[in-house]
Amino acid sequence: MDILHYQQEFLQFLKSKNWVQEPKNLYEPIDYILQLGGKRIRPVLTLMAADIFGSDSQKALPAALAVEVFHNFTLVHDDIMDDAPLRRGKATVHEKWDINTGILSGDAMLILAYKYFEDYEPVVFQKLAKLFSKTALEVCDGQQLDVDFETREDVTIDEYMNMIRLKTSVLVAAALKMGAIVAETSEEDANLIYDFGLNLGLAFQLQDDYLDTFGDPETFGKQVGGDIMENKKTFLYLKALEVSTTDISDKLKYLFRKKLEDNSFKVGEVTRLFKMNDIPVLVTKEIEIYTQKAFDTLSKMNISDVNKQNLKDFGLWLMKRTV
Amino acid sequence: MDILHYQQEFLQFLKSKNWVQEPKNLYEPIDYILQLGGKRIRPVLTLMAADIFGSDSQKALPAALAVEVFHNFTLVHDDIMDDAPLRRGKATVHEKWDINTGILSGDAMLILAYKYFEDYEPVVFQKLAKLFSKTALEVCDGQQLDVDFETREDVTIDEYMNMIRLKTSVLVAAALKMGAIVAETSEEDANLIYDFGLNLGLAFQLQDDYLDTFGDPETFGKQVGGDIMENKKTFLYLKALEVSTTDISDKLKYLFRKKLEDNSFKVGEVTRLFKMNDIPVLVTKEIEIYTQKAFDTLSKMNISDVNKQNLKDFGLWLMKRTV
Repeated sequence: MDILHYQQEFLQFLKSKNWVQEPKNLYEPIDYILQLGGKRIRPVLTLMAADIFGSDSQKALPAALAVEVFHNFTLVHDDIMDDAPLRRGKATVHEKWDINTGILSGDAMLILAYKYFEDYEPVVFQKLAKLFSKTALEVCDGQQLDVDFETREDVTIDEYMNMIRLKTSVLVAAALKMGAIVAETSEEDANLIYDFGLNLGLAFQLQDDYLDTFGDPETFGKQVGGDIMENKKTFLYLKALEVSTTDISDKLKYLFRKKLEDNSFKVGEVTRLFKMNDIPVLVTKEIEIYTQKAFDTLSKMNISDVNKQNLKDFGLWLMKRTV
Repeated sequence: MDILHYQQEFLQFLKSKNWVQEPKNLYEPIDYILQLGGKRIRPVLTLMAADIFGSDSQKALPAALAVEVFHNFTLVHDDIMDDAPLRRGKATVHEKWDINTGILSGDAMLILAYKYFEDYEPVVFQKLAKLFSKTALEVCDGQQLDVDFETREDVTIDEYMNMIRLKTSVLVAAALKMGAIVAETSEEDANLIYDFGLNLGLAFQLQDDYLDTFGDPETFGKQVGGDIMENKKTFLYLKALEVSTTDISDKLKYLFRKKLEDNSFKVGEVTRLFKMNDIPVLVTKEIEIYTQKAFDTLSKMNISDVNKQNLKDFGLWLMKRTV
């Protein structure tokens, strides 16, 4: 199992597509965002799953591309909504062009994603498109909940977990299941690999929350403390409210109502309160629970032990940035 | 053939759908725009075509809904891009809520449109989804060209016709063809009704251009003169440049570079120049050519004379607002 191999296979396929057609102002932004890079985790999962379930990863390339194009569509529209100037260190689409271009090119990407499924015969096509629509709508639901939570003070941990499940995990899960569908594996195994992806996705997002506050500024891709500056009610914050005294809760709530020019005091203070309440340990425990849940699913799957180990290795590779 | 009957059948189906689910902030705008009204031309065409090709219009309801939801998705996103405050006399979605809500609810509508095809078995599903993706991408291309033309001074009539074909006509054509696909008619008839719709759609859009300048303010739904105020390079303007003297062309070009607070002089003057150059007659001739092209296609179709007359009646009903 060589993740690099799948990445390269996917990148080659991506390059082989002729993105830029007329009208250029619609397709150049699509080419731009798709070439910006990233680890291509989702398409790699689709290729890997197809391989594991006895098909050829080559056959899963169009489905993998659909997943990656959809993921990038969400980035383009989310960046407009978040007014984000940068994505992977480069200008976002709406920043490099304008908001209207971002909206329309994003729309075209969502449609393009569906078009890649057309390479498959009707029954597989319908299964892929159904899973894709369900997943895409869930991602919209998740994005809306994320927006709603910004102005709500009573978000529970359960609600937060549901939001990240929708916004992040279902696409990881669907990427894997699409590989299983292309390989025409059993319904049971397809659902098991979906569950594996769902739990791994939750662990991954919780780890992202953790690293956003406690990560190494040298190796973490984003600005450490960003969630605190933005008053994001992540697992860390919600858990801290749950376990801390009223005094500390009130202090946290107070700090999370402020938007400041200079965030250094706020980030330092919130981080200190988190540490004081054992949040790093509690989050790490939670990450381990979801990672373990994912790995437990593997044992039920009707695949070779080598392939089970391969999926486990992928999970460990994905999560290794915790260290 | 009773257009009102199809409208009512569709509206009943629309009402039967439970739009507003959680998260409410995502689905309420969808419910709002879909209830705003309109003539429901596109879904009526889908139902009518299914009927004409020997199926039950009932069976075509999910496809008709997909077309209408897609059409409304384009309205929501286009209204953001055009910064339009009103739609059918009511506040646009981004005006009633905000731009982010308009973007995300629009995205969800595009996905919902695909979901309605899931009611059909795999082969029909794939045909519908393929036609839909092709059409939806063409509509995006058309919208982009429309935007591009705003800042171009060298747009030709051919380019303009291509733009309105993509932005407007292909969806009318696809709405009809979807009815044919649901009825599982021959490929040939399905393509003929597509061509019928394409030409009718072109005639319809040209008529819209005509009415925007020469319509009766009492009966035309939009503000008469709107295209002139917005410097829209419609068929009227492009034709005027083609047939008029250099003096008049230059005057028109000069007027179409201005954005004014008070448009009464500009609208009056451009209208006068159009009339002086016989534009009303020339446009009417062009509308008749495309309407006739549409009707010519009917004769080749393998349907009863009654049904041919029904389609013709629909065309005449659609075009009767010229008077």
